[in-house]
Amino acid sequence: MDLVGTGAAVRTRLEVPADSLFGVDNLPYGVFAPAGQNYRVGTRIGDSVVDLAAALGDPEFAGPSLAALMAQGPQRWREVRERVRELVDTEIDSAAVHALADVRLGLPVPIGDYVDFYASIDHATNLGRLFRPDSEPLLPNWRHLPVGYHGRAGTVVVSGTEVIRPSGQRRTDSGTPDFGPSQRLDIEAELGFLVGVGSELGAPVETGEFAERVFGVALVNDWSARDIQAWEYQPLGPFLGKSFATSISPWVTPLAALEAARVPTPEQSPQPLPYLQDKEPWGLDIDLTVSWNGQAVTHPPFSRMYWSPAQMLAHLTANGAATRTGDLYASGTISGPEPDQRGSFIELSWGGKEPVLVNGQRRTFLEDGDEVRITATAPGPADRRIGLGEVTGRILPARPR
Amino acid sequence: MDLVGTGAAVRTRLEVPADSLFGVDNLPYGVFAPAGQNYRVGTRIGDSVVDLAAALGDPEFAGPSLAALMAQGPQRWREVRERVRELVDTEIDSAAVHALADVRLGLPVPIGDYVDFYASIDHATNLGRLFRPDSEPLLPNWRHLPVGYHGRAGTVVVSGTEVIRPSGQRRTDSGTPDFGPSQRLDIEAELGFLVGVGSELGAPVETGEFAERVFGVALVNDWSARDIQAWEYQPLGPFLGKSFATSISPWVTPLAALEAARVPTPEQSPQPLPYLQDKEPWGLDIDLTVSWNGQAVTHPPFSRMYWSPAQMLAHLTANGAATRTGDLYASGTISGPEPDQRGSFIELSWGGKEPVLVNGQRRTFLEDGDEVRITATAPGPADRRIGLGEVTGRILPARPR
Repeated sequence: MDLVGTGAAVRTRLEVPADSLFGVDNLPYGVFAPAGQNYRVGTRIGDSVVDLAAALGDPEFAGPSLAALMAQGPQRWREVRERVRELVDTEIDSAAVHALADVRLGLPVPIGDYVDFYASIDHATNLGRLFRPDSEPLLPNWRHLPVGYHGRAGTVVVSGTEVIRPSGQRRTDSGTPDFGPSQRLDIEAELGFLVGVGSELGAPVETGEFAERVFGVALVNDWSARDIQAWEYQPLGPFLGKSFATSISPWVTPLAALEAARVPTPEQSPQPLPYLQDKEPWGLDIDLTVSWNGQAVTHPPFSRMYWSPAQMLAHLTANGAATRTGDLYASGTISGPEPDQRGSFIELSWGGKEPVLVNGQRRTFLEDGDEVRITATAPGPADRRIGLGEVTGRILPARPR
Repeated sequence: MDLVGTGAAVRTRLEVPADSLFGVDNLPYGVFAPAGQNYRVGTRIGDSVVDLAAALGDPEFAGPSLAALMAQGPQRWREVRERVRELVDTEIDSAAVHALADVRLGLPVPIGDYVDFYASIDHATNLGRLFRPDSEPLLPNWRHLPVGYHGRAGTVVVSGTEVIRPSGQRRTDSGTPDFGPSQRLDIEAELGFLVGVGSELGAPVETGEFAERVFGVALVNDWSARDIQAWEYQPLGPFLGKSFATSISPWVTPLAALEAARVPTPEQSPQPLPYLQDKEPWGLDIDLTVSWNGQAVTHPPFSRMYWSPAQMLAHLTANGAATRTGDLYASGTISGPEPDQRGSFIELSWGGKEPVLVNGQRRTFLEDGDEVRITATAPGPADRRIGLGEVTGRILPARPR
């Protein structure tokens, strides 16, 4: 760091390596706490975190949540992004700059409602084959609407939070269940979309309103206990197989940073009903990498998602459901058509029957002590790339009971 | 009201008719606003609402939510209930007393997560027959665990909120869907349980902790669009068929008022796994009445629910899911074995095939302008009864789009 002492206030310039995924094109928002201090809003630049209340002299950023910024809408988002961008070219108070390694990162915003979609045709097809081997893998509704369900908002946790292996009912060979630690603990690599500007009860959001309402994107790992899920999920859907933990990245990438990543979704056939038709492309060319104990095991491509996040929001509100600042909706597992693009381990190991080599060991589902890390990159301006994420978590043993 | 002027402060005694369902044995909590004033905490006594901040001189009750009281746990709940009970025998400041008819009633607490169970064996059997006529109505997991799913917390609204008819995708005879207003708009008469003292991530709640953690009971109408639900709900459960609105009563009856209503659940066979075994009876002998445009059409008995609310909470947290003050979990539709005990109109009208006479008209599902009112009573001390509720809502026409 290039410290320039000028009297009382020490000024500094931010160092941004040319190949950084967190350069001036990115500028994600998050909530962080320097050692021994409270959480406040920051942005990541290179391997530094800039305290926005201190750097911009704006007390709005002194609180422990992005909610105030998120609620204000696109004009304010553009203004703040412009001011943050200017910080890179000027000298700023060195007290506003922290090394990323020295801070704790918090949940970016209290989560309102959490919805999880099922928007990858390859994932839905794979799961259909694995969970219902005797039927058509894709159910009749799947190509007509983005299938989704509500998850547990109160157990959305920030990256780095350790995940205690859940216990629950598991079907046994006798047909009756026993109770114990999940033996088929899995991940789901997803993108999450955070609502900034909420919508009123009775007022559906149109696809064209997506960028006015959604503040940004986080990486999501929707941990899943497949044995618990398989026994419980008929007829009302996943419940305890999911609700023990959902991890999200501390950094929220604003939509403005993803302009160069926008692509059309793959062809949708049949044509969606009018309320689901995208007015402009909101597919996103974001490449994820899932690392299992440090080894990259799969590379899910978000560009292959059948439904766009604009369509998901329009569907979520088509019945008049209200949305609130801090609502999170996730894409569902991102899987591409190739085996090394599958976004869950149940798919990678094909239901546990085809183990994956992880550091030379044959693995199917998660073992105690395993760590999973999801990262992602997207095209930025001028052939540069930007980074999203990351979201990590380590499995702790089940609690005895 | 018996006004006793004593200098500056005007004192009054509360009038409680001997046959009131809201007498000294009840004392439910709610949030109310006198005309032109802010919401604050109150209790209902007879047809009066007592402002607890004013009557008890305790600023804790001046805020627009029960959350602070709910979070403090059973000892504090007992103390406050005792102090409120004493108000009935003393003269209190008349400025603390409002006529029920003159105040607005608010949502008792911001809802954290909302879970809906499916705990009536008669309802689950009826719905199984109607939704899956070609299979066993009760799925293999049903007698082993309280089936449930997460609903939308952000659209839980207080009684009296008008419900705009939702639009959505409905299957047509051609097999492909169209989009339009729900033609099969329904109710679900339920009880809701509000968590007071939350629990940590990774720490399951035992059945025996129910009364230490759950603050009280509200009436719930989980409005349901059956046509939207039938098309969307496979494989991940109900979503837009439910998420447009869930109404709850403004009055929360504390568990202490329901001591005389406690009964064992009906026999559970097979015996539940140990984590689901009730330590003491938490079935509740609460009788509901559903009125459709003023006519009582059904009388669902909560005493027939297969799973107790203590079992629901133990199941909800068995995987280590955390709970928070303000979490709401509802029982699912309460239906008894008799036709006039069915808690939804799809059951009452047997899928629309057996219309119900409502004020002389043959009705199946809800029409625009219809009003539904759910009330309930329970045994109190000494052969008296107490009232719960009520929860009402009127259907407004779908918005044009």
